[in-house]
Amino acid sequence: MKTALECIPCFVRQAMEAIEMSVNDVSQKKRLLRHVLREISIADWTVMPVVIAQRLQRLVREETGQGDPYRIVKDQMNQMALDLLPALAESARCHQDSREAVVRLAIAGNLLDSGSKSRIALEDLSGHLDAVWDRPLVGSVAELFEAAAEARTILYLADNAGEIVFDRLLIEALPIEKIRVAVRGFPVINDATLEDARTAGISQIVPVISNGSDAPGTLIDECSGEFRHWYNQADMIISKGQGNYETLSGSGKPVFFLLTVKCPMIAADIGAPVGALVVKRERRCEKK
Amino acid sequence: MKTALECIPCFVRQAMEAIEMSVNDVSQKKRLLRHVLREISIADWTVMPVVIAQRLQRLVREETGQGDPYRIVKDQMNQMALDLLPALAESARCHQDSREAVVRLAIAGNLLDSGSKSRIALEDLSGHLDAVWDRPLVGSVAELFEAAAEARTILYLADNAGEIVFDRLLIEALPIEKIRVAVRGFPVINDATLEDARTAGISQIVPVISNGSDAPGTLIDECSGEFRHWYNQADMIISKGQGNYETLSGSGKPVFFLLTVKCPMIAADIGAPVGALVVKRERRCEKK
Repeated sequence: MKTALECIPCFVRQAMEAIEMSVNDVSQKKRLLRHVLREISIADWTVMPVVIAQRLQRLVREETGQGDPYRIVKDQMNQMALDLLPALAESARCHQDSREAVVRLAIAGNLLDSGSKSRIALEDLSGHLDAVWDRPLVGSVAELFEAAAEARTILYLADNAGEIVFDRLLIEALPIEKIRVAVRGFPVINDATLEDARTAGISQIVPVISNGSDAPGTLIDECSGEFRHWYNQADMIISKGQGNYETLSGSGKPVFFLLTVKCPMIAADIGAPVGALVVKRERRCEKK
Repeated sequence: MKTALECIPCFVRQAMEAIEMSVNDVSQKKRLLRHVLREISIADWTVMPVVIAQRLQRLVREETGQGDPYRIVKDQMNQMALDLLPALAESARCHQDSREAVVRLAIAGNLLDSGSKSRIALEDLSGHLDAVWDRPLVGSVAELFEAAAEARTILYLADNAGEIVFDRLLIEALPIEKIRVAVRGFPVINDATLEDARTAGISQIVPVISNGSDAPGTLIDECSGEFRHWYNQADMIISKGQGNYETLSGSGKPVFFLLTVKCPMIAADIGAPVGALVVKRERRCEKK
């Protein structure tokens, strides 16, 4: 996906939030936000949104010296998700279709996204998750589990902190011995890193690798050799969230995208409304 | 109210929307949006948000040659409001407190705001208006009507197209012979001008004047002599919407602000949550 005009205000908002979390001094905040605006005004807008977001987040980290401005937010998200987990796992077990239930939870956890405009406030999470059973689910859960049964190796691309706690339920419902989870190589927005995988209890049940990159998505050419090895040899990739969708949609790889649609650009591209829970097979693999 | 860091992404979004409505050519859109970003990056951020919004909207109009990019949107808003008016007027008549009902409608009409982030889509208006009877209303309707009964002259500052249709119900419930309505002097965003006052049927029932300015609020020093005459001699001013609130809050004038809270900055300033319908007396006049 290419950057659209509609992405520009979101870049500004996203960078502003990172600035708010990185510094206290108002004049420093303003100076940095002016810098961000100049950078966006001269940026190449033909690249993917993730590339511009990555540069702006780097700029804020470099200028403020705060290497991980979202650490506190990520810790809160993880803790809140862990607190909710037992009751939600129980609800999933009692659901008439427990596979669909864990898919719904893993996708709804994707609402914990500081990068997105339609993100929800931490305190609203519980209410939103209550509605998870009734939200429209676009795509086939059966197809996802069939592909997983047939695959030899599955690479699971995590997205955000907090969300990664709910991923555990889905990972445990899939053929877990085939699964390797990948997280971001460096902190960017509230995306999950190795620390979050440990906190979520993922590292304790499957191998977890870093992708070696600080992009809030998966820019393959920037990823580590180790990540690319597993990415290229996986015969199924489960990709969480919009950032991974933006960067891997059209890749031709055997990807299942699991995401909550949170912006009109993604909605138009994926063909599902904002708010929908989506399971979508990579379009260039649909006929396989 | 001064510009906050949180206003900056909104300026970008607002200008982008004006650009989208003004030109079709994608490269011209991008060139203009880059120009807008540069302008914001070097702007004085110590002024009121309305001043920056005014400059950006001027820039878009001047660069595109489109003097009134929101004309089609404004026509649609007026027409939709006119279509809904008879049923809503009937609901207000049947309401247990018909004064409160017309105040609610005039304030809820303020949701028709292209300038605000929490604006609603045209097609959602009917549904939102259905909820108008149950939304929290902060402030005293009785105090508003008491002040109107005591006043000799009332200046009613309209806000947006569409919304101005619902203003008619409130104007007809107030002592109409004392009322003069003011609209923007020139098109800016979807703010109401003389044309909208005529379409809404306001010009047919009370005197309507232009304020002579193209600010999406009321910057007194920029307004015409005629407007300032009526503004200074009015012993009650009814001010609709956030833009007028931003610019007249703290003025010390005998103002009642009627607005739907649509942004967190206004919410913090006014002491009511986003989404609330508010009737608020100018703070420096509260003890009068």
